[in-house]
Amino acid sequence: MTESTLIPAGRYIFERVAQLGVKHVFGVPGDFNLTLLDELLNVPQLKWQGACNELNAAYAADGYSRVRGLPGVLVTTYAVGELSAMNGVAGAYAEHAGMIHVVGMTARNLQKSKVMIHHTFKPEQDHAIYAKMTEPINKTQALLFDDATMAEEVDRVIVEAVKSRLPVSIYVPTDSVAVSVDAKRLQIPLDLEIKNDPQVEEKIVERVLEEISKASNPAILADVLTIRHKALAETRRLADLTRFSSYSTPLSKGVIHENKEYYNGVYNGQVSFPETKAALEGSDLVLNIGPLLSDSNTGGFTRGLSDDKLIMLAHDYCAVKKERFDGVHFLPVLQRIVHELEKNPSTYKLPRSPQPKVETPILSDSKSGPITQGYTWQRLGKFTRPGDIVVVEAGTAQFGMPDAVFAEDVSYLTQIYWSSIGFSVGACLGACTAARELDIDNKRRRVILIVGEGSLQMTVQEVGSYIRFGYTPLIFVINNNGYSIERAIHGPKQEYNDISMLWDHQQLLGFLGARKETGIKSRSFACKTVEDLEAVLTNEEFVEADYIQLCEIFMDKFDYPWRLTGQLDVVRKRAAALQAKLDG
Amino acid sequence: MTESTLIPAGRYIFERVAQLGVKHVFGVPGDFNLTLLDELLNVPQLKWQGACNELNAAYAADGYSRVRGLPGVLVTTYAVGELSAMNGVAGAYAEHAGMIHVVGMTARNLQKSKVMIHHTFKPEQDHAIYAKMTEPINKTQALLFDDATMAEEVDRVIVEAVKSRLPVSIYVPTDSVAVSVDAKRLQIPLDLEIKNDPQVEEKIVERVLEEISKASNPAILADVLTIRHKALAETRRLADLTRFSSYSTPLSKGVIHENKEYYNGVYNGQVSFPETKAALEGSDLVLNIGPLLSDSNTGGFTRGLSDDKLIMLAHDYCAVKKERFDGVHFLPVLQRIVHELEKNPSTYKLPRSPQPKVETPILSDSKSGPITQGYTWQRLGKFTRPGDIVVVEAGTAQFGMPDAVFAEDVSYLTQIYWSSIGFSVGACLGACTAARELDIDNKRRRVILIVGEGSLQMTVQEVGSYIRFGYTPLIFVINNNGYSIERAIHGPKQEYNDISMLWDHQQLLGFLGARKETGIKSRSFACKTVEDLEAVLTNEEFVEADYIQLCEIFMDKFDYPWRLTGQLDVVRKRAAALQAKLDG
Repeated sequence: MTESTLIPAGRYIFERVAQLGVKHVFGVPGDFNLTLLDELLNVPQLKWQGACNELNAAYAADGYSRVRGLPGVLVTTYAVGELSAMNGVAGAYAEHAGMIHVVGMTARNLQKSKVMIHHTFKPEQDHAIYAKMTEPINKTQALLFDDATMAEEVDRVIVEAVKSRLPVSIYVPTDSVAVSVDAKRLQIPLDLEIKNDPQVEEKIVERVLEEISKASNPAILADVLTIRHKALAETRRLADLTRFSSYSTPLSKGVIHENKEYYNGVYNGQVSFPETKAALEGSDLVLNIGPLLSDSNTGGFTRGLSDDKLIMLAHDYCAVKKERFDGVHFLPVLQRIVHELEKNPSTYKLPRSPQPKVETPILSDSKSGPITQGYTWQRLGKFTRPGDIVVVEAGTAQFGMPDAVFAEDVSYLTQIYWSSIGFSVGACLGACTAARELDIDNKRRRVILIVGEGSLQMTVQEVGSYIRFGYTPLIFVINNNGYSIERAIHGPKQEYNDISMLWDHQQLLGFLGARKETGIKSRSFACKTVEDLEAVLTNEEFVEADYIQLCEIFMDKFDYPWRLTGQLDVVRKRAAALQAKLDG
Repeated sequence: MTESTLIPAGRYIFERVAQLGVKHVFGVPGDFNLTLLDELLNVPQLKWQGACNELNAAYAADGYSRVRGLPGVLVTTYAVGELSAMNGVAGAYAEHAGMIHVVGMTARNLQKSKVMIHHTFKPEQDHAIYAKMTEPINKTQALLFDDATMAEEVDRVIVEAVKSRLPVSIYVPTDSVAVSVDAKRLQIPLDLEIKNDPQVEEKIVERVLEEISKASNPAILADVLTIRHKALAETRRLADLTRFSSYSTPLSKGVIHENKEYYNGVYNGQVSFPETKAALEGSDLVLNIGPLLSDSNTGGFTRGLSDDKLIMLAHDYCAVKKERFDGVHFLPVLQRIVHELEKNPSTYKLPRSPQPKVETPILSDSKSGPITQGYTWQRLGKFTRPGDIVVVEAGTAQFGMPDAVFAEDVSYLTQIYWSSIGFSVGACLGACTAARELDIDNKRRRVILIVGEGSLQMTVQEVGSYIRFGYTPLIFVINNNGYSIERAIHGPKQEYNDISMLWDHQQLLGFLGARKETGIKSRSFACKTVEDLEAVLTNEEFVEADYIQLCEIFMDKFDYPWRLTGQLDVVRKRAAALQAKLDG
């Protein structure tokens, strides 16, 4: 090994990151990660995106992952940074956004002496305790303690991050940053391919094709892990090839182009439009791709899809009706199915003549007066155009948005399983960053953030980062006087569901930097009526989104989306039934 | 047990909290804690203080603890809330602020079925996993899973929180909130008294008194756990009785009234004023009360105090010179010593004629021109008046403030061991709340927040909470163009130490609610010169602090407090020595 082939371990990490295609890294500096960040800056393909705090940075990395289909990279500092990020990392686990979390930590000799350095919390503390605390929300971790295995460990966890779409951590003691590793290793590409047992895979493919051949009224239910596990293109191709009636879920909205005649809406068990529900549940075969079966993504566990007509293509198992194959990843299975259908369409009677399309009912034909939940979401849906990235906050927005119909090829980011409010504001930073990376060919994608005013208060500072980095999202602030989602759940008039109503959202962009003196253009609108909102949504400058703009929409605090009350009805009925059982 | 003696377990928790003297509870609502919050509102002595997010709420609870000397109470929701708070809770552990963290979690039947409800992160997950993740930063936890022991468990952990001054958690499944417990139990006061083995305690007291009698030049070094473990009054009494030369540390500044002739400054090992260092290290006996021996509180472990002249009175051991007594709490020991000295002063030749006072050197006599670090901190010290609560952020402010001389009875809050930037903004909310509780007799205490603009970006939304709740702190924003503390440490010109400089701090209070239309008065000042700042600090309305005001102080980004560079010199020299040892 000659001198010239050696590089610092810190640099090695970021070279591998760059090889994935990542171009921006998120985080916050701290005294245990500064030399690590030097190494990041030494990699010409990477840029640093400092966020205002670590939770927001984690949300940003998550949002970036969701748009780019690559693990977002987050750098934090020892203890104070990594612990602050924890909720954001856990969300990336829950929803398979994936993340590579690089944490600067105390030098190895300080760890050995267990010195009571700042960011430890008691004498004689194991300095690696925070890594242990984080373990449950990591797929795996690399603690770079041993010079001999550092590069190998970095490779191992990056491969796991890409394959699993779950967060991993790399802990880097300050003195490990400069440890020399062999740069030649970088010439060997990481093996990121998902592989199954070929025989099992073959069998599943055969069985699925057989079922497809036999089915008279098959359907595709494409859930969110389809997108996360990089099967979006294949799934859209499958729908296009077969013309099977196709459905998304609350989490996967947009996975099927919504302008297509075979798209039938969002399926969410009992909390679906009745026509959508009836159509899917009336199918004799449902290909459920990339399922994520959490409460709020299944209408509170009320899916009416029996095993005997289901094909489950999941990231950790596949099942054809009642036959289950554990440990099989759906991606290669789906690729082979699509390939076979493309090669021999007539064998499978493709494309089928489509079933009658389920049209989305129009919930409100308001032309004037107060803005209602029923009106808003479908109107915002009509506002979308191809290529848009729509980031939607937990809360009423998340329960309203499934009513909308999107333009073709809209990327929809929301966090309805992990459901951490404030997520969208950080995620929007990541989405803007990812959009810029994707805009290399100048096909600019608009980024649209829809956030309630209570959620905005959680993470508001990151709007300043949009301005700092020159991003121009359109920001819709739903101002409905407190935590409306919680009013719907319990205590509609209890004071804990109130928040400060003193903020002036019309001043937000100016305060954070987009104002005359800085030369950064912005515009803010306040909409109290349908007429107000129509004027904004049809304003050409607003539509073009060339500069940052904010549109505040006022709604009544006790107006809830029907899907929210519907979901809560399911939960309450189940609780009542359980109580009755216990009582009697 | 008759019907009328039963109350819900949720109510029981908050009744016990109210018995401690706590009057405000901090937190953020979420769907797993709403009925729990109903029970809080049912306790007439308690008020709810909703914060914008959970990390800030944790900081607020910590700030409240530090001012009130009671554990701050924090309520968060399952997973997303509790994980967001984690860094704040860990800080309260590190610095013995103490905290009672009440977490709403999934109902017990949902836990049993391991249902994939929102805020879990994978199928078949143990719903209590977050409690396990939090365990290391809790003194103890109560998981209210068993009806029979709920009240007892609540009592146990509250007692532990009060005695240890460390955080504890109470996990409350949604269905446990309504479980009936016996209200009569509330009539038995919790036993919160710290007790030692009487014989060991007696021996320590005798030995300390003996050493005091013998010493010719004894000193008191009162550290921060003196304040946390409720020995502030005793310690001040000891200093007053004995007139021994007395010292504080970077964390405990203000523990000794700084206007007293026996107060000699802040001792921080090699990073002290030379006269202060020489005086303390020249003493033949040092009573070190409530020590917290972290790096930044000991000048990077450079205290020049040998065991053979030290009396250590710590929360978990006492030591008289080389004789160590483990497991002994200093509080009762100190109380007995003070009692004995008060009773028989002449036996101990008290009060001693004081040693010559060490005067604090004046670092800058600037009367005009740019504002420097050397000038600022001592000037702000002069601005304090008795009773002030001064909340100082990590960063340059924290390293500058020890240069100041405070008025009598100033409470100083800073987090130089845990050192999480952004802390001060949340802690100030708690400090304001505590100050209001203490103001029952209308002796209003000013709250002064000193924060860098980078730290402010971390947690800025809580300034809106000050306005919401009608608090009127004076906010000093040190605007020095990025993370100056990190520039001093490494990479002074690296871009990762830059932040957005586009925020207009002059608009902050207006944006967040204090402006003409709301009728909430505020005023903001921008100071670029000493003359500007003098004008503000001598402005009568500013001094009176009857409404919220902000004073922005511009400083050069490469100007660092001498204590910061001094501390870094210590660290670098040690690292170089270690490297030399390794090299050869």
